[in-house]
Amino acid sequence: MAKEFQSSPVGHEISAVFHGVGKKFLIDGKHIKKVLLDGLNIDKFGIISIASHDFKPKGHSTAVLLSESHTSIHTYPEHDSLTFHIYSCRRPGDGKKTFEHLKKTLNPEFIDFKERNVIVSRNHL
Amino acid sequence: MAKEFQSSPVGHEISAVFHGVGKKFLIDGKHIKKVLLDGLNIDKFGIISIASHDFKPKGHSTAVLLSESHTSIHTYPEHDSLTFHIYSCRRPGDGKKTFEHLKKTLNPEFIDFKERNVIVSRNHL
Repeated sequence: MAKEFQSSPVGHEISAVFHGVGKKFLIDGKHIKKVLLDGLNIDKFGIISIASHDFKPKGHSTAVLLSESHTSIHTYPEHDSLTFHIYSCRRPGDGKKTFEHLKKTLNPEFIDFKERNVIVSRNHL
Repeated sequence: MAKEFQSSPVGHEISAVFHGVGKKFLIDGKHIKKVLLDGLNIDKFGIISIASHDFKPKGHSTAVLLSESHTSIHTYPEHDSLTFHIYSCRRPGDGKKTFEHLKKTLNPEFIDFKERNVIVSRNHL
């Protein structure tokens, strides 16, 4: 996908907490990062750059700058949970395929799911 | 600030659109990035890594991985606006000082402001 991208006047944001994720996933930063990147590829996002960090003694963060904005994931092995956020200026309702890939792969017990359209053009207010 | 950080069971997320920001700010990616980093320093966040991109013909994105999670900014000169997002697992209500610094410095005409506490521990649900 091309790195340059014409933004939509209305983007979309998903913010979710996955509760009850298996410890084996939460302590494996390399795997979590791969699951996120696989989701982004399935969703045809353009990846510009990736920043990752493994915390000590545990926990992993990855933030990805996208042609279409950004996404991130943070794991909390001490709480059996992770947070996922994606904001895309590609179109309203965007990012669902990435979210669904994470949900299917990481199989949480339940999810606190929030989403909203983000209006960036005053003509659409 | 130390790079390693003990997360709170309840974090905080701010998601805002600044409308009516001066073009001189929106087309100057270097300045926008500096304003964001200054805000993070005022707010005593730990910066782990920074990813930035200048889009062609215009527009700038910066995403920052923090000890306390992440933040990002995306400018839309074509819409006279920018989006700001911060998620911190440091404490409930966090990130306000960074937001206030952006608001004061960039002086938007109006702001679509959303915030919420993010519960990462099931013991706090």
